[in-house]
Amino acid sequence: MTEVSENTTVISAEELKKHSTSGDCWIAVHSRVYDVTNFLGEHPGGSAIILKYAGDDATQAYDEVHAPSIIHRTLDREQFKGTIDPLTIPKKQQVEPGPAQNKSPEKLPDLSTLLAVQDFEAVAQKKFSKKTFAFYSSAATDLISHRDNIESFRSLLLRPRVLRNVKEVSISRKILGYDSSAPFFVSPAAMAKLAHPDGELAIARACGEENIIQIISNNASYPLEDIVDAGRPGQTFFLQLYVNSERQKTEELLNKARNLGIKAIFVTVDAPIPGKREADERISAENFVSAMSGAVATNDKKGGGLGRVMAQYIDSSLNWDDLAWIKRVSRLPVFLKGVQTAADAKLAAEYGCAGVLLSNHGGRSLDTVQPAMVTLLEIHKECPEIFGKLEIYIDGGIRRGTDILKALALGATAVGVGRPYLYSLAYGEEGVQHLTEILKDELVSTMKLSGVTDIDQAHPGMVNTSKIEHLIRTGGERHPWIKWKPKARL
Amino acid sequence: MTEVSENTTVISAEELKKHSTSGDCWIAVHSRVYDVTNFLGEHPGGSAIILKYAGDDATQAYDEVHAPSIIHRTLDREQFKGTIDPLTIPKKQQVEPGPAQNKSPEKLPDLSTLLAVQDFEAVAQKKFSKKTFAFYSSAATDLISHRDNIESFRSLLLRPRVLRNVKEVSISRKILGYDSSAPFFVSPAAMAKLAHPDGELAIARACGEENIIQIISNNASYPLEDIVDAGRPGQTFFLQLYVNSERQKTEELLNKARNLGIKAIFVTVDAPIPGKREADERISAENFVSAMSGAVATNDKKGGGLGRVMAQYIDSSLNWDDLAWIKRVSRLPVFLKGVQTAADAKLAAEYGCAGVLLSNHGGRSLDTVQPAMVTLLEIHKECPEIFGKLEIYIDGGIRRGTDILKALALGATAVGVGRPYLYSLAYGEEGVQHLTEILKDELVSTMKLSGVTDIDQAHPGMVNTSKIEHLIRTGGERHPWIKWKPKARL
Amino acid sequence: MTEVSENTTVISAEELKKHSTSGDCWIAVHSRVYDVTNFLGEHPGGSAIILKYAGDDATQAYDEVHAPSIIHRTLDREQFKGTIDPLTIPKKQQVEPGPAQNKSPEKLPDLSTLLAVQDFEAVAQKKFSKKTFAFYSSAATDLISHRDNIESFRSLLLRPRVLRNVKEVSISRKILGYDSSAPFFVSPAAMAKLAHPDGELAIARACGEENIIQIISNNASYPLEDIVDAGRPGQTFFLQLYVNSERQKTEELLNKARNLGIKAIFVTVDAPIPGKREADERISAENFVSAMSGAVATNDKKGGGLGRVMAQYIDSSLNWDDLAWIKRVSRLPVFLKGVQTAADAKLAAEYGCAGVLLSNHGGRSLDTVQPAMVTLLEIHKECPEIFGKLEIYIDGGIRRGTDILKALALGATAVGVGRPYLYSLAYGEEGVQHLTEILKDELVSTMKLSGVTDIDQAHPGMVNTSKIEHLIRTGGERHPWIKWKPKARL
Amino acid sequence: MTEVSENTTVISAEELKKHSTSGDCWIAVHSRVYDVTNFLGEHPGGSAIILKYAGDDATQAYDEVHAPSIIHRTLDREQFKGTIDPLTIPKKQQVEPGPAQNKSPEKLPDLSTLLAVQDFEAVAQKKFSKKTFAFYSSAATDLISHRDNIESFRSLLLRPRVLRNVKEVSISRKILGYDSSAPFFVSPAAMAKLAHPDGELAIARACGEENIIQIISNNASYPLEDIVDAGRPGQTFFLQLYVNSERQKTEELLNKARNLGIKAIFVTVDAPIPGKREADERISAENFVSAMSGAVATNDKKGGGLGRVMAQYIDSSLNWDDLAWIKRVSRLPVFLKGVQTAADAKLAAEYGCAGVLLSNHGGRSLDTVQPAMVTLLEIHKECPEIFGKLEIYIDGGIRRGTDILKALALGATAVGVGRPYLYSLAYGEEGVQHLTEILKDELVSTMKLSGVTDIDQAHPGMVNTSKIEHLIRTGGERHPWIKWKPKARL
Repeated sequence: MTEVSENTTVISAEELKKHSTSGDCWIAVHSRVYDVTNFLGEHPGGSAIILKYAGDDATQAYDEVHAPSIIHRTLDREQFKGTIDPLTIPKKQQVEPGPAQNKSPEKLPDLSTLLAVQDFEAVAQKKFSKKTFAFYSSAATDLISHRDNIESFRSLLLRPRVLRNVKEVSISRKILGYDSSAPFFVSPAAMAKLAHPDGELAIARACGEENIIQIISNNASYPLEDIVDAGRPGQTFFLQLYVNSERQKTEELLNKARNLGIKAIFVTVDAPIPGKREADERISAENFVSAMSGAVATNDKKGGGLGRVMAQYIDSSLNWDDLAWIKRVSRLPVFLKGVQTAADAKLAAEYGCAGVLLSNHGGRSLDTVQPAMVTLLEIHKECPEIFGKLEIYIDGGIRRGTDILKALALGATAVGVGRPYLYSLAYGEEGVQHLTEILKDELVSTMKLSGVTDIDQAHPGMVNTSKIEHLIRTGGERHPWIKWKPKARL
Repeated sequence: MTEVSENTTVISAEELKKHSTSGDCWIAVHSRVYDVTNFLGEHPGGSAIILKYAGDDATQAYDEVHAPSIIHRTLDREQFKGTIDPLTIPKKQQVEPGPAQNKSPEKLPDLSTLLAVQDFEAVAQKKFSKKTFAFYSSAATDLISHRDNIESFRSLLLRPRVLRNVKEVSISRKILGYDSSAPFFVSPAAMAKLAHPDGELAIARACGEENIIQIISNNASYPLEDIVDAGRPGQTFFLQLYVNSERQKTEELLNKARNLGIKAIFVTVDAPIPGKREADERISAENFVSAMSGAVATNDKKGGGLGRVMAQYIDSSLNWDDLAWIKRVSRLPVFLKGVQTAADAKLAAEYGCAGVLLSNHGGRSLDTVQPAMVTLLEIHKECPEIFGKLEIYIDGGIRRGTDILKALALGATAVGVGRPYLYSLAYGEEGVQHLTEILKDELVSTMKLSGVTDIDQAHPGMVNTSKIEHLIRTGGERHPWIKWKPKARL
Repeated sequence: MTEVSENTTVISAEELKKHSTSGDCWIAVHSRVYDVTNFLGEHPGGSAIILKYAGDDATQAYDEVHAPSIIHRTLDREQFKGTIDPLTIPKKQQVEPGPAQNKSPEKLPDLSTLLAVQDFEAVAQKKFSKKTFAFYSSAATDLISHRDNIESFRSLLLRPRVLRNVKEVSISRKILGYDSSAPFFVSPAAMAKLAHPDGELAIARACGEENIIQIISNNASYPLEDIVDAGRPGQTFFLQLYVNSERQKTEELLNKARNLGIKAIFVTVDAPIPGKREADERISAENFVSAMSGAVATNDKKGGGLGRVMAQYIDSSLNWDDLAWIKRVSRLPVFLKGVQTAADAKLAAEYGCAGVLLSNHGGRSLDTVQPAMVTLLEIHKECPEIFGKLEIYIDGGIRRGTDILKALALGATAVGVGRPYLYSLAYGEEGVQHLTEILKDELVSTMKLSGVTDIDQAHPGMVNTSKIEHLIRTGGERHPWIKWKPKARL
Repeated sequence: MTEVSENTTVISAEELKKHSTSGDCWIAVHSRVYDVTNFLGEHPGGSAIILKYAGDDATQAYDEVHAPSIIHRTLDREQFKGTIDPLTIPKKQQVEPGPAQNKSPEKLPDLSTLLAVQDFEAVAQKKFSKKTFAFYSSAATDLISHRDNIESFRSLLLRPRVLRNVKEVSISRKILGYDSSAPFFVSPAAMAKLAHPDGELAIARACGEENIIQIISNNASYPLEDIVDAGRPGQTFFLQLYVNSERQKTEELLNKARNLGIKAIFVTVDAPIPGKREADERISAENFVSAMSGAVATNDKKGGGLGRVMAQYIDSSLNWDDLAWIKRVSRLPVFLKGVQTAADAKLAAEYGCAGVLLSNHGGRSLDTVQPAMVTLLEIHKECPEIFGKLEIYIDGGIRRGTDILKALALGATAVGVGRPYLYSLAYGEEGVQHLTEILKDELVSTMKLSGVTDIDQAHPGMVNTSKIEHLIRTGGERHPWIKWKPKARL
């Protein structure tokens, strides 16, 4: 916790209680009192949740989602009003632990008994609060794309070659020119602190240990600088970006990122608005009465979706012409995260992007979209020339070493793993490391059993794509056999 | 309730009881006594159910299915015999509430907790009587088309375009030239009063609020004029038509419709006879002993199907040549509801129809027919020229905003939603509105996440049809590879 | 029961008991005593089951499977030894009703509540003994063809035409030139007496009432003459034939058939040996201790399969050259029952057969064979010319009126329904009639809803075969893409 | 048990106990004391499990996995230290039977009630210890290839020809020129003693009785000589080979094999490292505390996989150039076991192999690989000429006589059956025989019902491959439609 200077005012509980309206709102967090009246309208989580603690101690609700330092860094100096002894604040009637709190000291299975990615999901479902698990695991409406993502990899058949010397195998990979011990990275996922107090810090530390790359979420629980600090010197980080309706804030973030040594910006393009994740919405809608989103449920007909609330600041007017601005401000390579058609991958190359992350947001944005693997194959048919112009990454549904090798064999430079890393946080840094080792180990095995010894040898002939080839659409905007045209064109 | 003039005869219970045979049959409804002897043969629900209450008070059974005013409007003045105090009629042994009565005051979940179309079905299943739910939810024989309808939409993959300014989106649509706030309408579905006392009136009111179009069922529980009256001045209504074997009755209905300002006639062409909906038939067959269909079960080997009983008046000799008559009498645009092949869509254009509603009656008519979506694609292959000649609507299986956009992207002008609206009636008008808002909201989200801002921009390139393309048959009556010919030709 | 002449010897229980060895074996059946010593080796069900009752009363076990008259007709006059009062025979310890006995007076659901073919199967499963249901319902090994048969019809999509006058519909059909009120017939199925005491007689009577054709099973429980007698004068019967290893017996049967007025012979060609029906085998193998097959289980390593035991007399050397003999002896049109390739259908035409019944024996012979519907489509591709040369029937998996119309639209003259008729025997003759009416009614509905009014109008354009078209193999014995050839050729 | 010479030292329990460290380790097995200090590092099962019994009686743990004679044959004369009376060794606290011990005398169902391959699996699951069943039944990661193997056979449709004289049928086959009574053999599977004390000896004896070929596992529980001895004189055996990192050991084995009359060497090429069989790994990881693998779990983060532990000695540097060495040393025909592409089958022919066994190791090595049947079809498209150059066998997923005939009809000379034979060992030699008879019987039936009388007549025209034809990839290393190339080439 940051230091409190000597000449800090000491505030009484009575004084604090006087500031409990939306026009004059103070709250206490970790013994410090802040005037958040002007911040109410800027809070990504909405004002209602803050107002619930107006004139009161908000520490517990705050800690569930935020890093200790973030409030201090976010508010101006003059909004800090003084300190208070929280014990002097009268206790409200004890509320039962809400769905946002992880289940208490039920012992986790020994980490060494977790053998596969799925095992982490099973543990997370038991350990995390209902709300947290719903927020992480949910996907858009009927979960069809979520399922299709996983199936798209499983339905690719491997064609192992035999009798090759596979004693020594290397899985290291250059990603955007940076060394990585493996051809996969941690895809950005919001609010890791819901899973573990160390949140994104634990991921950063484990990525340092394992020498893999983390793409930091724009909605991380911890401030960017803390996450970068948690890593090793020189550790490679990328940053996910949601462009803020207040562009100035985005510029500040990009400047900060460059100064912190972030190596690339991944502009999220598949979520100009949040997807409809009903499992997430339902918790609140049905019985979510605890700290964080309780108030939200009272004033929102759509439910209590954490994902939706957090997306309120996103600028849905973002378009291709804005890319120049992002590149200019950040002075960093720009990737598009969430490209879903060959046509857009081609446009990305034309607009000078360093690469694309083929993704449908883990099935969380729009349901029934084509899986990223289909888009990758579409690129082979529609615009193979872009393989030489930008790097192509892919995520969504990758759960096995076999999935990773398939993606690489079909031309991806690297793949992203998202939800599984959030689940692995049930064990903090150690869990993230263990998951990484499992994936590395499976990839090594897959390579040996497939007859290749270096990631760079992975080639399309290793994969039988016949089960999904019929899904590849060509012709871009036009169906070759459809002559009808809509009234308006874009 | 309509006024009773002063010089009305007061009838005693003994007097009423004297008229309890099929040759002399009086019943009491809402304190009024009618001589229904001549009406017995005309009752769409059959005579048996009326005879059950011959010489008795039929109010409760009447109210389960009919609007208060309909008996008065239907019968001639001289059939009204006088009034009676229902309390003077001796009570029969109390019968338990039958399957036709909705379950009692079990509290519905708060409307705001219903997030998706499916949620309404779940509530309806709990709240409606077994018989009502069976009548609404049932489909023909093995439910294969019912399932295929839903799957046909889900199996279309969306191909979202990114980085387009989607801040402002419009989902308004011209339907037959009339403004609609959304490109969907309420498909006609019979007997809404089984779901809620306000029945079709509630739908009309909600459609007025939401500015969408209602196609009024030919088998509505309320008289046409009441439904139109329930709407706002100038509100757009279409009317579904089953042609009556007594053509004169159809002419009366068409004249009335035009006078009431109905804007189009949807001639049902996929149900010259009713489908075999076994769930509907079974309730009676097994244990339906309550008011409405009790008697039917005793004299019918096929079960107790409400749908079948109601279809008795339909003229199965209706054919293409009759369309001229309908157009002449109604002086309104005529649509064919239930077109299932490109060939018939083409004929509809040739016969001067204003449009077609591609539909298989929600899978309720004939099982294992091709889904309407396949027929829409067939039109693209067989007769794309008709897109310029008539409007093409589609219904059956639409449950999501994604479904709606897919249909529009593939050339439909509008889509219909049927069963879900019946289910939404569990909450009356408010439910209809809430369902409408959910669909609008999902459609807006789908558009933003797909990269289009106006319905008119929806185009085939947004949809990957590869999962169902192989189902598109061409060649009309001939299979290109089949040389065998039947003995007789049509 | 047949008359006993006056000068019949009366036999005592002690006397009977003396003849209880395989070298000297008498049994009593319905108060009559027979010397079956020489018959032991000829009994289709094996000798063990008879020996179990050597020197004893075998009436109950006999009645479970045989018609009253069959023993008297089968044995020679001198094998009849006299009469006995069964009550004088000492009762053995009471045995519980075995799996071969139908469950006792549990009341069947009212026949009018059975709406569909499946309903009969459900009733039969409850009502029949385990052994009987297993014998009827079982199919070869993994039941894959059994399932595929049903699916092959369901996966055909209907393409209804609308706005045709369908007020009057005719489903009557000429089958081999004989009038039938419907285009379907009763496929032969063995041992109907296990289902109902009237067995095949009930079927014959109902077929007379309904004016449809019955193909009498070669393994019927009743003698052929009894079955024909049960019908109406002039009623059309066909006869299924398994050629007996003792050809003389087959010649006798064919002569008898012609003399009884049978109109055609259906030579079973898909069962030179019985299929492996494990459900049938298992009952005995596991816990079948009752009358009929108890003994069999003790001396047979393969289980207790009724189907297998009954097939022991079949001549597996039967081949194309034998057809001339069958035609010559029977002087009747000959059909091949169980043709499974276009090549064999073509051969059938060349060998002068009147027709073929495309069938895989209801999936009971060999598992994973192609469904008959695929064979029908194969004929269209491989040898469409045979449609003009012979009649093509089809069975296996037909459960709905839609299934029937699909088969006819694709060129079949008639379809067979097998197992469902056995199940319908739970209600005897009445059940057979009710099932027939359901199928007729469904077929009429399917025609009206499809827009045809006469069976002869059914044409391929009504059916979308796209879901199974890829299964049609052409090239006969050669795969076009396979060059490898086996060492030996047929 | 081998004889103990008179001048053997008698060792006391106290003396034995003194040698209980990794630097000085004695154990007692069947009353004989061995110094295994130098053997610790060579034990295929790892040293930990031996150390657990250092200075103690290891007989029980030894017997669970090893043949009585193997220790004596493996160790040098001087490592035998003397005898001990095991009763003098103080009993440790009684441990409950661990997961590695088969369940006690629960009576097995009578062998005659087992009708199909699946029945053996069901019995094995009940009878075997959890660990044993997991080791046998497990497959790689998500079991997709395991399932696909079985489905690949089931999805082939048979096309039976009718009216052929099938009275006499021969299923005998020349396999590599050796007579076999059937066209299938026992595929090698490790550690049969876990299933039955007689282990591979029982298989050898039954194969002798049935005149079929056994491929002896390189990881058999019994020494090669014992297994060969168990057979009849002149009985045909093949030997599976895993090449040992210490090549000298492989040479010794090959010499021994030739001297014992082994007829061919099957070099395993699909398992340079073990597959990830999670069911196998999990037993230990979760609760495996018994004898054999208990210690392993304590020092291994990946679980307690028996398969993985046993594979430690395998030389993953093995490659095509090593084949010459194997041929030279063994002077026997060499087959490659585990070929998974047409390209490698072609290479095998070029390298002078006698044949290939198309296999994916029963789905146990790498998951989501293409089924062997697809590889067989691929060979027809890619390199049909090799059918004349080498013999092609296939295994994985064969459970029925129909599966066998399909493989032969498509060009395989013989097929292998693996897991089912391990399961049949629940009944020892008798079980192996019964299983063999079931398969022979099913094959005979399949042939009769398909219209062929000799295995050599089986031809591609008998099989409809349309359900899996789309899976056949051609073009070898190149996808015809993919232009992208990886950085490195092999």
